[in-house]
Amino acid sequence: MSAMIGGMGMAADTGSHALDEWRLDAQPYYAPAGGEIEQFEAAFHQRTPLLLKGPTGCGKTRLVEHMAWRLGLPLVTVACNEDTTAGDLLGRWLLDADGTRWQDGPLTLAARHGAICYLDEVVEARPDTLVAIHPLSDTRRMLPLDRHGELVHAHPDFMLVVSYNPGGGRLLKTSTRQRFCGLECHYPPPELEAAILMHEAGIDAAQARPLVALGTRTRRLVGNGLDEGASTRMLVRAAQFVAQGMAPRAACQMAIATPLSDAADMQQALAAAIDASF
Amino acid sequence: MSAMIGGMGMAADTGSHALDEWRLDAQPYYAPAGGEIEQFEAAFHQRTPLLLKGPTGCGKTRLVEHMAWRLGLPLVTVACNEDTTAGDLLGRWLLDADGTRWQDGPLTLAARHGAICYLDEVVEARPDTLVAIHPLSDTRRMLPLDRHGELVHAHPDFMLVVSYNPGGGRLLKTSTRQRFCGLECHYPPPELEAAILMHEAGIDAAQARPLVALGTRTRRLVGNGLDEGASTRMLVRAAQFVAQGMAPRAACQMAIATPLSDAADMQQALAAAIDASF
Amino acid sequence: MSAMIGGMGMAADTGSHALDEWRLDAQPYYAPAGGEIEQFEAAFHQRTPLLLKGPTGCGKTRLVEHMAWRLGLPLVTVACNEDTTAGDLLGRWLLDADGTRWQDGPLTLAARHGAICYLDEVVEARPDTLVAIHPLSDTRRMLPLDRHGELVHAHPDFMLVVSYNPGGGRLLKTSTRQRFCGLECHYPPPELEAAILMHEAGIDAAQARPLVALGTRTRRLVGNGLDEGASTRMLVRAAQFVAQGMAPRAACQMAIATPLSDAADMQQALAAAIDASF
Amino acid sequence: MSAMIGGMGMAADTGSHALDEWRLDAQPYYAPAGGEIEQFEAAFHQRTPLLLKGPTGCGKTRLVEHMAWRLGLPLVTVACNEDTTAGDLLGRWLLDADGTRWQDGPLTLAARHGAICYLDEVVEARPDTLVAIHPLSDTRRMLPLDRHGELVHAHPDFMLVVSYNPGGGRLLKTSTRQRFCGLECHYPPPELEAAILMHEAGIDAAQARPLVALGTRTRRLVGNGLDEGASTRMLVRAAQFVAQGMAPRAACQMAIATPLSDAADMQQALAAAIDASF
Amino acid sequence: MSAMIGGMGMAADTGSHALDEWRLDAQPYYAPAGGEIEQFEAAFHQRTPLLLKGPTGCGKTRLVEHMAWRLGLPLVTVACNEDTTAGDLLGRWLLDADGTRWQDGPLTLAARHGAICYLDEVVEARPDTLVAIHPLSDTRRMLPLDRHGELVHAHPDFMLVVSYNPGGGRLLKTSTRQRFCGLECHYPPPELEAAILMHEAGIDAAQARPLVALGTRTRRLVGNGLDEGASTRMLVRAAQFVAQGMAPRAACQMAIATPLSDAADMQQALAAAIDASF
Amino acid sequence: MSAMIGGMGMAADTGSHALDEWRLDAQPYYAPAGGEIEQFEAAFHQRTPLLLKGPTGCGKTRLVEHMAWRLGLPLVTVACNEDTTAGDLLGRWLLDADGTRWQDGPLTLAARHGAICYLDEVVEARPDTLVAIHPLSDTRRMLPLDRHGELVHAHPDFMLVVSYNPGGGRLLKTSTRQRFCGLECHYPPPELEAAILMHEAGIDAAQARPLVALGTRTRRLVGNGLDEGASTRMLVRAAQFVAQGMAPRAACQMAIATPLSDAADMQQALAAAIDASF
Repeated sequence: MSAMIGGMGMAADTGSHALDEWRLDAQPYYAPAGGEIEQFEAAFHQRTPLLLKGPTGCGKTRLVEHMAWRLGLPLVTVACNEDTTAGDLLGRWLLDADGTRWQDGPLTLAARHGAICYLDEVVEARPDTLVAIHPLSDTRRMLPLDRHGELVHAHPDFMLVVSYNPGGGRLLKTSTRQRFCGLECHYPPPELEAAILMHEAGIDAAQARPLVALGTRTRRLVGNGLDEGASTRMLVRAAQFVAQGMAPRAACQMAIATPLSDAADMQQALAAAIDASF
Repeated sequence: MSAMIGGMGMAADTGSHALDEWRLDAQPYYAPAGGEIEQFEAAFHQRTPLLLKGPTGCGKTRLVEHMAWRLGLPLVTVACNEDTTAGDLLGRWLLDADGTRWQDGPLTLAARHGAICYLDEVVEARPDTLVAIHPLSDTRRMLPLDRHGELVHAHPDFMLVVSYNPGGGRLLKTSTRQRFCGLECHYPPPELEAAILMHEAGIDAAQARPLVALGTRTRRLVGNGLDEGASTRMLVRAAQFVAQGMAPRAACQMAIATPLSDAADMQQALAAAIDASF
Repeated sequence: MSAMIGGMGMAADTGSHALDEWRLDAQPYYAPAGGEIEQFEAAFHQRTPLLLKGPTGCGKTRLVEHMAWRLGLPLVTVACNEDTTAGDLLGRWLLDADGTRWQDGPLTLAARHGAICYLDEVVEARPDTLVAIHPLSDTRRMLPLDRHGELVHAHPDFMLVVSYNPGGGRLLKTSTRQRFCGLECHYPPPELEAAILMHEAGIDAAQARPLVALGTRTRRLVGNGLDEGASTRMLVRAAQFVAQGMAPRAACQMAIATPLSDAADMQQALAAAIDASF
Repeated sequence: MSAMIGGMGMAADTGSHALDEWRLDAQPYYAPAGGEIEQFEAAFHQRTPLLLKGPTGCGKTRLVEHMAWRLGLPLVTVACNEDTTAGDLLGRWLLDADGTRWQDGPLTLAARHGAICYLDEVVEARPDTLVAIHPLSDTRRMLPLDRHGELVHAHPDFMLVVSYNPGGGRLLKTSTRQRFCGLECHYPPPELEAAILMHEAGIDAAQARPLVALGTRTRRLVGNGLDEGASTRMLVRAAQFVAQGMAPRAACQMAIATPLSDAADMQQALAAAIDASF
Repeated sequence: MSAMIGGMGMAADTGSHALDEWRLDAQPYYAPAGGEIEQFEAAFHQRTPLLLKGPTGCGKTRLVEHMAWRLGLPLVTVACNEDTTAGDLLGRWLLDADGTRWQDGPLTLAARHGAICYLDEVVEARPDTLVAIHPLSDTRRMLPLDRHGELVHAHPDFMLVVSYNPGGGRLLKTSTRQRFCGLECHYPPPELEAAILMHEAGIDAAQARPLVALGTRTRRLVGNGLDEGASTRMLVRAAQFVAQGMAPRAACQMAIATPLSDAADMQQALAAAIDASF
Repeated sequence: MSAMIGGMGMAADTGSHALDEWRLDAQPYYAPAGGEIEQFEAAFHQRTPLLLKGPTGCGKTRLVEHMAWRLGLPLVTVACNEDTTAGDLLGRWLLDADGTRWQDGPLTLAARHGAICYLDEVVEARPDTLVAIHPLSDTRRMLPLDRHGELVHAHPDFMLVVSYNPGGGRLLKTSTRQRFCGLECHYPPPELEAAILMHEAGIDAAQARPLVALGTRTRRLVGNGLDEGASTRMLVRAAQFVAQGMAPRAACQMAIATPLSDAADMQQALAAAIDASF
């Protein structure tokens, strides 16, 4: 599956249990809105890198967790940020009492032993860091670790999934896009979102309905002073405060309005949306 | 609670007394202005990350100290700045006579052993550094330490609290905000602020009243050449100078006017505010 | 072939099998569109550095793989990015239990032992990093490794090939261009592209034709809101989804339209192009 | 006074003589112009961080030296500059034959063992470096050394003093200002400045008077092409050249006019000021 | 010739064969166009640093190689780029099993043992890096290696030569220029350039003439969309393709037109220039 | 003279011969134009930092060399550039077989053992790097080596001299200027400059006169397309070419005109100046 160049005599970590820690303990709850499960499976079947687009908190991470469970694969997640370098994905040399020791990064770990490698908020990483994944998306599915002097051939079970919010202003490089197939994700439709709140927070339908209505109202404010509306995740938190016994308006203020914006006019608009919903 | 990948055989610091140093010695004085204590407890109950907004020196840090004492938790505080990197929060490898040794950063320390991790002035940190906390705010509450090759599952007692001044010009990323619930903090109302000065500096009500009036006057100058008015902390210092026997105007000049601004016109406005208050 | 300066007594890796890992296992499929195979061979005959220009996914990498197989040479590929430094190409010192050990970079490896060194997306590397290749393109074909204190004379079988997309906005330095001869690569003509889809995905001519037509339509959108049209590689992926049994329109949406653009108007234009093709 | 986290078994330098080198050998000459000595003592009494504002060379450093002598404290001075990082103030790990050894930075040294820590030209440091001092200025007076895994509680004798020139264009962050009380420093009034020249250079009153007049004249040029007028320090140097037997105009040219400006018109204005003074 | 400071007991590499690798194996072919050989010798006689100006590929490097052979000196060449630091020219400490070992950089190597040090494309280096050469160009011909704690006095045979293309937009610092004497280099006149093609590629005069004519035509396009015309080096490559049997137009397309420009209109102009020449 | 903090038991290099290498071998030729020798001696008498202003190549470095010889002091020269950091001036830790070893930088070396430290082209260094010299210019003449944990008290023979070209566009910080006294340096007057050429190149007065005239003509072009005129150093080089037997115009072209400018119109103006001078 991998081989060393130049007979350096240094073995990389190869325990077959290397990814045990990254397996999911329990089946993640996921309520499908369309054909996304079948399409994800078709991409896995071809081992094509997959791009998930959609707003923050709409369920992209949950979909990936669900698919990892369904496909029986470990899930190695990387939260990308501006400081994410190729070295963070590929691995690095660590100094040791016996000299240097190579430590696989999460991408290498997944490619070497077979896992879904999930790069969350991939556009946050510097565009050129992603060039490191290009050889993995070619038909040869190789990962050259120049710093290790090694050429890793990807495990048959390796799959690359990335996600981002297309409304966030940053873009993927054209030459990176061309290497992916893609799925668009959306907030769940109202009935489904209410069902999620009821399942996750243990509230009833009468309690869930105004929360879903508030979510919809905040999403209409996007572009009028708000970057993003309340995510399903935020609604779940408000629902959990309600389930704890907090008054619904206080719960929505704390879980949704206060964190969503610092602007005074936006706070007024959000207060009005809360008033309209309860 | 945590596990190693790839059988490296290097244990992280795991002493159960690891956080003893961060426990508070005595109950911090805190005079609540509204329902903030109950709302903080509701957030802790759900283990939701909590965002405190409010001007410098209005009592955010004191609230967190009070809640740590009340909940019986150690309090690990990080004063964020532009150089705060993910490595500063998560930890790093140190070189040693026996090779490298991993040292947990404050966030890891709190997540591993159970504590409130308080990121003060969180907007000072580069926005992307905060992406490191995203996996901790998901339902799985994991902290991947890529550089240590470890996946930490947060201790049941771990809670994340961040604070910032929304008037300071910097913003949190939208995708970070979505992961928090929030509380707004304000300067205490006059009667309460006077009571605080009397308690903290040992002055009487007649001495406290003009200081509180001066504080209110300086806060009205915000936006007219002053970035922030005198904080409660500054008023406490002036009160302590007065308690030492310094003339109130000299005390206010030294504790409030000189540090608040370098501009000549602002110095005149502050001198006038002092004159009007005594 | 190489020599050490100053009698340092440290040998670089010199195993004659150093490049075995970089040899191709099987003949890569390549359908030539013109005289590119003969021209590549003429450049190799003179050992002139060769520049391949053309859009993403049109087959440049496949041509180089094919030529490496044909000429019986190992192929060392480097995916260039903004962080690609001269050290990444030339090599670096690694710390070891016995002190430091020099590790050849991919360019040095190819120059020392004889291989095609292929710098993919070469304009992504900082222009000045490429200055490191200038001495290799002179008649003396030397590679000074200042950090190793060594002067490598290139192996007779060494050849340098670089590629980039001239539509991508970045340019090569004039003084670098002058050191190369060049070939222009294009998308295959329709009949040839259909044959490629049939060969790579196992679909029939009736299935391939509308996919090729869609590719052509998307390429006409370039400059009208799209940076690049669908590459041959993207069409192959859509063809593979079709071969798996997915409906052609869904396959094209997932393999082509979703990844190509985030803009709403472009998504409509791509949907119309799919409608027109099936 | 300090304690280690996690039982690392590495002791920081704790010699009680650690600060001997920073004690002053002799009482520094200082001629007070107002109540600054008493106000400094009041700030020390409260252990409030103190901000000294005033033009270059007006005597801020001399005041701090005088107060350190008067209060019997060591004085640890840091000349701040743009490269001053938090690590420069707090300390760092040094590599040693026995592994790494922690070395306290000047701020930690002063906080641990009890001294005045004086940050000269504090606005030169990057604003965010100063965030490192925030926890020291809270009531808990702690200094978290994240990199050492240690939480230092400040010594009872520790005091923080910073100085800057408010005319220099750079500002302190608002959230930093709020943590200080402040004193304004000015050039000494003429009679006092003449006395200083006589004391420091051993000239007589007739020699001192025109030098003080020249100083006053150059300070009137500020804002008209000169950033700062001649400091008391510059006048002392001219006085010393005069005491050596140099002609007063040549002494003023060399000690004041040549260094103050490179602009031809300013050199003429300074020459005229010299002519007018002698 | 060199000495250590402070009795550190660490010897730099001093083998008298240190520069053997940098000697030329055979006399480089060079056809002089004017008095440049005598002027180069006069500069060497005075050991004055020499500046060569001229377009890319006009023969500057070949002149330096020729003069090194003629003067019997090793030639140490450095291809400068934006990342060329003073450390790259002077040397650095390497870590070893026995501690650190100093490694001379190419400039130090040449200065210590006696060689021509040739900085090619010197304006690519950051202007201030070149300040490192200033002490070598003074009458004392010293090279302070601050990081080695050593002061190298230049070998009597040391000479510094730099080259750049004055049309490339970057300039040398005025204070650096003042330390050099200079020679201007040009493309060879047509008869001489034809002779060079015949000598280097083995073609006859009839084959060389249209190539030289094409070169002249492309050089007239400079400033009209082309940064530089075809260099003599490019013409030699086209001539070698012709000698291999390639059709002249195809050879010129591959060796000249394709690498010279990516712009469509320039490609047409170059095609027309090829048409006009054959 | 110096002492260690905290009993670290690591001694800095203290050999009394530490500066032998930096002593001058022979008296440097210097022809004074005014009272600069006496003024330099007065500054040394007071140990005041000295600022030399003047155009490139007018003799500033020669003056400093002459004064070092005259005062019997070693001369430690630093050619400043943009990469000159405080660490380059102060010193750094080097890794060794026995751990780390402190190496004094040139400023520390001079301050510890007694020498003139000459910072050439001081404005090239980042302004804030020079803040490191501030404590040395106070009356306590201390040099805090924070990284070494040492406080160096300057040797009685230590003197700091800096130089720069005020026409070069960069300025010293106001707070740095205030710490220096200053001397202005100019090109020598014609008769003196001719005498210098005759002494340095061994030419006669008839040969020297037109060279001096050419120098004067080029200096009149400053501001009209030329940054600086021919320096005395350049005239000496032209004189040496003439002494070697080169024709004067060719010598002036090579030593003066070619290096002074790349602009075509300036080359014509310089050619006319050569024509007018011979």
